[in-house]
Amino acid sequence: MIGEILRSGEVFHAINPATGERLEPAFAQAGKSDVERACQLAWAAFDSYRQTDPQLRARFLETIADHILALGPMLIDRTVAETGLPIPRIEGERERTVRQLRMFAEGMRRHDWLRSQVDVALPDRLPLARPELRRRDIALGPVAVFGASNFPLAFSVAGGDTASALAAGCPVIVKGHPAHPGTSELVGRAIQKAVAECALPEGVFALLPGPSYALGAALVTDSRVKAVSFTGSRRGGLALMKLVASRSEPIPIYAEMSSINPVFLLPEALSLRAEKIGRDFAGSLTLGVGQFCTNPGLVLALHSSGLDRFLQSAAEALAASKPAPMLTSAIQAAYEESVGLLTRHSKLKTAGCGPRVEGPNQVQPRLFVTDAREFLDDERLSHEVFGPSSLVVRCPDVDTMIAIAEAMEGQLTATLQMDDADMETARRLLPVLERKVGRIIANGWPTGVEVCEAMAHGGPFPATSDSRTTSVGSRAIERFLRPVCYQNLPAQLLPEDIRY
Amino acid sequence: MIGEILRSGEVFHAINPATGERLEPAFAQAGKSDVERACQLAWAAFDSYRQTDPQLRARFLETIADHILALGPMLIDRTVAETGLPIPRIEGERERTVRQLRMFAEGMRRHDWLRSQVDVALPDRLPLARPELRRRDIALGPVAVFGASNFPLAFSVAGGDTASALAAGCPVIVKGHPAHPGTSELVGRAIQKAVAECALPEGVFALLPGPSYALGAALVTDSRVKAVSFTGSRRGGLALMKLVASRSEPIPIYAEMSSINPVFLLPEALSLRAEKIGRDFAGSLTLGVGQFCTNPGLVLALHSSGLDRFLQSAAEALAASKPAPMLTSAIQAAYEESVGLLTRHSKLKTAGCGPRVEGPNQVQPRLFVTDAREFLDDERLSHEVFGPSSLVVRCPDVDTMIAIAEAMEGQLTATLQMDDADMETARRLLPVLERKVGRIIANGWPTGVEVCEAMAHGGPFPATSDSRTTSVGSRAIERFLRPVCYQNLPAQLLPEDIRY
Repeated sequence: MIGEILRSGEVFHAINPATGERLEPAFAQAGKSDVERACQLAWAAFDSYRQTDPQLRARFLETIADHILALGPMLIDRTVAETGLPIPRIEGERERTVRQLRMFAEGMRRHDWLRSQVDVALPDRLPLARPELRRRDIALGPVAVFGASNFPLAFSVAGGDTASALAAGCPVIVKGHPAHPGTSELVGRAIQKAVAECALPEGVFALLPGPSYALGAALVTDSRVKAVSFTGSRRGGLALMKLVASRSEPIPIYAEMSSINPVFLLPEALSLRAEKIGRDFAGSLTLGVGQFCTNPGLVLALHSSGLDRFLQSAAEALAASKPAPMLTSAIQAAYEESVGLLTRHSKLKTAGCGPRVEGPNQVQPRLFVTDAREFLDDERLSHEVFGPSSLVVRCPDVDTMIAIAEAMEGQLTATLQMDDADMETARRLLPVLERKVGRIIANGWPTGVEVCEAMAHGGPFPATSDSRTTSVGSRAIERFLRPVCYQNLPAQLLPEDIRY
Repeated sequence: MIGEILRSGEVFHAINPATGERLEPAFAQAGKSDVERACQLAWAAFDSYRQTDPQLRARFLETIADHILALGPMLIDRTVAETGLPIPRIEGERERTVRQLRMFAEGMRRHDWLRSQVDVALPDRLPLARPELRRRDIALGPVAVFGASNFPLAFSVAGGDTASALAAGCPVIVKGHPAHPGTSELVGRAIQKAVAECALPEGVFALLPGPSYALGAALVTDSRVKAVSFTGSRRGGLALMKLVASRSEPIPIYAEMSSINPVFLLPEALSLRAEKIGRDFAGSLTLGVGQFCTNPGLVLALHSSGLDRFLQSAAEALAASKPAPMLTSAIQAAYEESVGLLTRHSKLKTAGCGPRVEGPNQVQPRLFVTDAREFLDDERLSHEVFGPSSLVVRCPDVDTMIAIAEAMEGQLTATLQMDDADMETARRLLPVLERKVGRIIANGWPTGVEVCEAMAHGGPFPATSDSRTTSVGSRAIERFLRPVCYQNLPAQLLPEDIRY
């Protein structure tokens, strides 16, 4: 990876995963000189961009949103062709992308992001006078954003990371995901148009397309890059973390990596509504062909007739699910390999399966079942399988359920299916889950991450590399800010936003 | 360092730096089994401690403050004996330590620290209902705090790091600084008394004394430790950062390391009041024998008669300064070595010097002068000298002054001595300084860090390892918190602090 030579101009194509066909046109991979140029321009743009009026940054974000919408069906068609995801999903994701940009714009207009604070001077305080102190947050510097394959709009070129970094006042350099280069280019041009219309410096935004690992490596080790955000595989995230750790100047890296999002089916809920829970679970598992970081990959329940009914209902729903292609042939192959291992695992039984598939890159959703002891004995069973596969673990008692929660790695979410009589069990689980996850859901499903103020999309390692933050919701902007304090500065010199 | 064997019970003594005499009693160094026991107890205490009522945590912090005050002259005398610092300074530092504890207690009582947020449910929203989402911050886990030699009370056993971590709900394990083991033990016992009185679990606090590097290494690599805070040398901080980076689970490390705190003497200010600036500068430089992280180690000014007057005034003040011992013989030796190199440096002139010294560990304050080109050509000249030594750099013009600011590493502070006619120069410097430092001071001095809401004591690397935070002031608590989101959780299950 490090030794790989990064040449400008080598071409690559997108593949339509639904047909396996190569899509025109060819895209030129960014090379070393492109990384250099992007970093140089971003650094040159940084000081003026971070000091722009927040009203201007708000207009900039809104203009990006407008230009994305103005792309109309051209964007939707290309994204569908590059991802195999259905039109309504892509339209919904575009809506979410636009909403994210506008949410940060509104925050800018309300000055929400500043977290400024003033301590007035106390000239007569004894034994020492107190000076006047004013604090605000300023942008960290140019940010490298890695586009995610599974959110070609909402977590790619103009996605949540880009929106929050631009709102913070950071220039953004996107490493485009090679699975959707056409989508990336369309959105990248929409941003560049907005940069020009808002008369911002060119270096505020750059898109570096290409499949090469060396491209990302060159970017995150450049001294002008001051933060990195990434959504993707654990392997990819760990590799980036290692590269970032090798820099002489440490910088924040926000890698969102791996999560199996345990679902706890508590006894009363299972006894009262096993069938509905089974159906709804299957819906969450197969949503977007299981390609969400919040996909429910682990289910914990007590041995019971309710659990048998749940399994039957889920199996029926999976059997009736519609085949659909995964995002890329590499993702499909990785899914088949993982599922093959689970299918051949001597301690696992297959409890449900999607219909036979025929089209390119299509996969069968899978539901496996095992017992608590087997699960605790084999660490591999708690690894994420990216795709519509889940494992049900039968527990002999609540203590075992809690022990499994305690043994879990960090997760983005945990879900409780519960009713009134389950309150005490939930109460026992809660402190363990708080330590392990970023979001706890009652009687819902982990897929579907609301973009709002109170969201926390993150969690302890390996769910993310930095549990102190969220990548979704308004607080995501804080990832790209640092505090600066002004002591007794003359009013004329104070930045306008804290001159009050 | 890593290979060093960590044995329990090897003894060490404090040395009185003012006399060079060994102080009784002997202290037993903590060993591997002590680290294991402290981590095990801290982990066992974590869940119940983080869930304590904030009112109880407030009372706990106040009780610690009370017990520190109750130690009376015994604490002051021992601290003076172990540090060579004068009584008024230690009394002032005790006051500050108590104030910090009470500030976080007040924050607890006001629920200031929570940063909670609620998004109400929108059941009728189309196309999808919005669930109810509530977010709050919870404690990260047990925190390893490294006591600093230069603040034996305010940044040691019950200092700012301990106070903010305990306030956040994190158990604290302090690696005691070996230069003041008696002070550490007295304060540690005050905390343990408060733990018992507030009926908190024993593991909420532990003190591990000892001079061994292996002790700190064992602590920061223990999987139950979830954050590290350190104030000290760049070498020490970098070594800890490397150890933390070697963990399989990444955790935050807050290392405050190295800063030369540039002071810009702008032309009009220098012309109007060079003498006073020179005297006040000398006062800041020699305060606490120069042993502050905010010590003004670099002065930038234009060639001018004002600068000559500044140099003369500063030299006179230094010559009249009172000799005092440094904290340890190792610190004194390092100071003499650095100052020796500067004295022999062919491009530097000595511009001022303290009076001859005779007592043990006493040092002469030093002021050197050089030209901008020499400074920019020799990277060693911008390294921190821990102690009362500073370097004045004569610049031919304002552009050069700005170029030097631009070439600087990250700093805790920058100071402007300025008058009305200097406004434009200050305006040009400001954006550069904002990128480089955590606090910008006008017409004051960097020493003396106010403990308040608006403080930012931090800055870009190598001033700290994490510029997103402050180690002084109320926002320091955020270093030890992470967000958790609760989606549609029944009210009975919601933590009390967000059940509104």
